[in-house]
Amino acid sequence: METVVIVGTGLIGASLGLALKAAGFDGRVVGVSSAPAIRDALDRGAIDEARPLVQAVARADLVFLSQTIGRILDTLRVIGPCLRPETLVTDAGSTKSRIVDQARSSLRGAQFLGGHPMAGKEKRGASEADPALFAGRTWILTPTNPAHLEAPPARELLFWIRKIGALPLVMAPEEHDRVVALTSHLPQLLSTALAATLSLRLTAPEHLKAAGPGLADMTRLASSSYDLWKDILETNRTAVEGALAASIEELQRLRAGLTSDQTRIAFETAAAFAARLRK
Amino acid sequence: METVVIVGTGLIGASLGLALKAAGFDGRVVGVSSAPAIRDALDRGAIDEARPLVQAVARADLVFLSQTIGRILDTLRVIGPCLRPETLVTDAGSTKSRIVDQARSSLRGAQFLGGHPMAGKEKRGASEADPALFAGRTWILTPTNPAHLEAPPARELLFWIRKIGALPLVMAPEEHDRVVALTSHLPQLLSTALAATLSLRLTAPEHLKAAGPGLADMTRLASSSYDLWKDILETNRTAVEGALAASIEELQRLRAGLTSDQTRIAFETAAAFAARLRK
Repeated sequence: METVVIVGTGLIGASLGLALKAAGFDGRVVGVSSAPAIRDALDRGAIDEARPLVQAVARADLVFLSQTIGRILDTLRVIGPCLRPETLVTDAGSTKSRIVDQARSSLRGAQFLGGHPMAGKEKRGASEADPALFAGRTWILTPTNPAHLEAPPARELLFWIRKIGALPLVMAPEEHDRVVALTSHLPQLLSTALAATLSLRLTAPEHLKAAGPGLADMTRLASSSYDLWKDILETNRTAVEGALAASIEELQRLRAGLTSDQTRIAFETAAAFAARLRK
Repeated sequence: METVVIVGTGLIGASLGLALKAAGFDGRVVGVSSAPAIRDALDRGAIDEARPLVQAVARADLVFLSQTIGRILDTLRVIGPCLRPETLVTDAGSTKSRIVDQARSSLRGAQFLGGHPMAGKEKRGASEADPALFAGRTWILTPTNPAHLEAPPARELLFWIRKIGALPLVMAPEEHDRVVALTSHLPQLLSTALAATLSLRLTAPEHLKAAGPGLADMTRLASSSYDLWKDILETNRTAVEGALAASIEELQRLRAGLTSDQTRIAFETAAAFAARLRK
């Protein structure tokens, strides 16, 4: 692997560039992004040079798409004819089924392996990039066929994922989407719903003084921008609607019997899950 | 104020003892609690001595009830006849209307001022007590009549609340209960509902590897024990049911139009609230 092309040099893309260099990658890292994102990525030393998309991917051994989901879909539609057959394309999109489908129809010649590094930060952009962003974090890979992981470029990608300290986890694209609807998309929507509910009802400044650290925890995700979330919700609608419906049912049960044994059981089940998550 | 009686020397009660001593209180701090709680509180130096309830409150200038809500109600029913008229009784119960009502009917002779220090820790017990637990935290007081704050024992309580670094905030008992239903009880139930929902649906160990720090934030409260929450939910049922209903409606709106303008507005409203909370 000599040339890595990072399309979208924001927080994730620029962090991958820094992480690869810190882990000893001595090939070229080429960035494709908007002018300000390229400038920040060059300033941070996350990429060696910038190129236009088509020119860059034509020479790539690995193409890493770290854009929003909508832009990843656009990029896939464009780059197919420019790729060499030995090039591997991967991505960092937060939902996988739509992206994997698009890659299957657009990249007939080249290889594709969907990915989702479970890493992030509250702040965005290459200026926040961190070579340790992926260390200790799960990096999900979603091959449509597990045999794809045995192809040489995929094995090399796995080598570097491990080398930068991330923990690869293989899932089918549909399973990924169902799981993250529960572990990521539902928590986001509950945080948003909580903050929106409180916003209308806690209007006096002194009301917020009654809030403790629990409310701060529960509204941290509520700061997220809808511009990032619209694509996620659009491309994982069925699983997200199902997760929302299940949580609404659970809340309705709690409301119907706040001091019933059923609520005691919900608290105990919830505490056991919280403990399992922290193990 | 020479004798402070702390009824219930758990985390909150023992922390108040330590905080008073650290702030220069040189009177006696008498503890009333179970044998193990008393032993821990004496070990930590949070109290000077232990006494049975009736004997202790008979000599108190200030009685601080830091028990669960149910036990505070029981204690109020018992101590009325033993109090001197100049004694002030206050408490740390998480809901206020029921406690204030009980005090009004049970403490006809003495003075009562409901309180709720917004402080805590994940771990309980006097062994976790901390003289700085209240520093920088809001301490809500719920007089039924604001003039009660002008009585000399209430002024002295306020002096010590400020002296230990807490920030007094005055609210009517009913307003307190409506506000904490939103800032504390609703976040708890959303966290519990989220963790209970996920518990049934994420059964494979690798599913939890797909979880990021957002889910950890959103399930921290889910570790709470129902034994503490049962009394809170029971004594604030109407406000909690109303808060739950409002959040269920918000979630139903989100579910009905995940990529609609209404959802964009909910995200923007929520982010503005999260920013307001953090100011």
